[in-house]
Amino acid sequence: MQHVFVTGAAGFIGSSLVDRLLADGATVTGWDNLSTGQLRFLEGAQRHPRFRLVRGDNLDQPALTAAMKGADFVFHLAANADIRDGWKHPERDLQQNTIATFHVLEAMRANGVKRIAFSSTGSVYGEALVTPDKPTPENDVFPIQTSLYGASKTAGEGLLAAYAEGAQIDEAYIFRFVSILGERYTHGHVFDFYQQLVAHPDHLRVLGNGTQRKSYLYVQDCLDAMLHVTRAGTARTAKHHTQIYNLGTPEFVQVNDSIRFICGALGLQPRLEYTGGDRGWIGDNPFIFLDTKKIQATGWKPKLTIEQGIVRTLRWLEANRWVYEARH
Amino acid sequence: MQHVFVTGAAGFIGSSLVDRLLADGATVTGWDNLSTGQLRFLEGAQRHPRFRLVRGDNLDQPALTAAMKGADFVFHLAANADIRDGWKHPERDLQQNTIATFHVLEAMRANGVKRIAFSSTGSVYGEALVTPDKPTPENDVFPIQTSLYGASKTAGEGLLAAYAEGAQIDEAYIFRFVSILGERYTHGHVFDFYQQLVAHPDHLRVLGNGTQRKSYLYVQDCLDAMLHVTRAGTARTAKHHTQIYNLGTPEFVQVNDSIRFICGALGLQPRLEYTGGDRGWIGDNPFIFLDTKKIQATGWKPKLTIEQGIVRTLRWLEANRWVYEARH
Repeated sequence: MQHVFVTGAAGFIGSSLVDRLLADGATVTGWDNLSTGQLRFLEGAQRHPRFRLVRGDNLDQPALTAAMKGADFVFHLAANADIRDGWKHPERDLQQNTIATFHVLEAMRANGVKRIAFSSTGSVYGEALVTPDKPTPENDVFPIQTSLYGASKTAGEGLLAAYAEGAQIDEAYIFRFVSILGERYTHGHVFDFYQQLVAHPDHLRVLGNGTQRKSYLYVQDCLDAMLHVTRAGTARTAKHHTQIYNLGTPEFVQVNDSIRFICGALGLQPRLEYTGGDRGWIGDNPFIFLDTKKIQATGWKPKLTIEQGIVRTLRWLEANRWVYEARH
Repeated sequence: MQHVFVTGAAGFIGSSLVDRLLADGATVTGWDNLSTGQLRFLEGAQRHPRFRLVRGDNLDQPALTAAMKGADFVFHLAANADIRDGWKHPERDLQQNTIATFHVLEAMRANGVKRIAFSSTGSVYGEALVTPDKPTPENDVFPIQTSLYGASKTAGEGLLAAYAEGAQIDEAYIFRFVSILGERYTHGHVFDFYQQLVAHPDHLRVLGNGTQRKSYLYVQDCLDAMLHVTRAGTARTAKHHTQIYNLGTPEFVQVNDSIRFICGALGLQPRLEYTGGDRGWIGDNPFIFLDTKKIQATGWKPKLTIEQGIVRTLRWLEANRWVYEARH
């Protein structure tokens, strides 16, 4: 069984992946700088003999290279996900998403690790969407970036591809996520709305006008997809050693739908206060809706609808209010 | 008249641009770390009262910010152009093309400079070309990167776009160049072939099989195009404040055609020794041929054919053999 190196191992998706990999028999080295990750997410993993957590930062190339020794697959999930405040700290996306990815790839070269999966984002499509009501396929037009986050992830994708097409690594899997939710979810609109409704159940402040359309994917469906594709090894046999997959559900909702699901599950009828405008913040893409035919053609499909995913997220937040205090 | 800040001012294209801007009445601050630039290219400019050269590196943010003070337009031409040896120094493209571009943009923010032109490359299209015998338009499919150079320039483009679409700057012009040649050209196949033919006029070693198709643009045509578009201010009025233009000629040649032009101009008939294969080096794109309808629609067109550009380049190299010794 293989030895998997997971960056961002204490994060929402990373820790969920660690648990899945351990359950499937893999040896796992988790790597995290604990800047936003939660050690509590790894409590189960830490009791497992096949798990080891190394605390370190992707910008520390020697430590990263040393920690990766012996691995034969890398899941590179560590990232700066603070999309909204990009302009307060414009260097963060560059450092934590672009330069960090370069360090991961160089650590792989140094250790002879040949396979990697990378969590990218639907934000890489910027606003190049020619037909904005149609889901965006992987081979859409060359986009114009609209956010530092999208630009930094596009840059990370480019690095993976250059390493794979330049024969420095054998298999590069790039997954462009919609928003992911589910157990251990610690930021995003469900997180914020629930926090507000605990504080003041009678009203809810909504960024934008509520008609922003978004697509969400449940975290275990996301993990199913990544594990399915990387185990099938599609990049081994394809013309390109870089394989790019959109990851999402074939449906979307409006923020207003999501509010309805949340309030229904909580039994609340708050007064809604909209800040207005067709996007929540500068650089927010009013509509991320990905064409997932390519990944579905591999045999994967999501088990939960967006509504089911939102309700599970809410139930987890209700049972784990500690994450609101633990948050940085 | 405006004050223009030129990065890479002592380089081939940079120094040619400096001379053009001074002739047109602009005040020019040149910025160069002189790692590959040549002070001799700026001998004329240095005698000009409206020119100032500041020696510094794009990775030195404070010095760059200080040097840019008072500018109202930036031509960001400084780059690592050592495409072939990307894997010997994989950090160079990231540092000198991606991180450097971030520093330039941050220096602009600090100084309130709102307009920038950036020299990108046809290499950003990687091998996503669906119909490889057709010229590639700016809105071709989202490419898979094939080289560190292309990936680093794509990343630089993404940063410019994020700054422009995020309202941090007003106008971002991205020019995707084919290979540029002409006076002050100091690397590339004409440079290498002429060097070989001086050393041994009876034979010529050719990387690949000579059928690689390439497109070239004469440097003064390249400058005409950039000055024409930036002065027209197309990014001010367009939907996107990021305007991307392919820059090239509507023709292409094979490396073998180029050899014929060169040998004809020199009156030589060397024996040709091909290293073989359909590309010169790993990551070499066998065919960069850009659709230039968008820039031609603005009223610009090239004055020289590829053959005329190659012959002018050769004449300049004959008269300036010192560049072979000055090269790093």
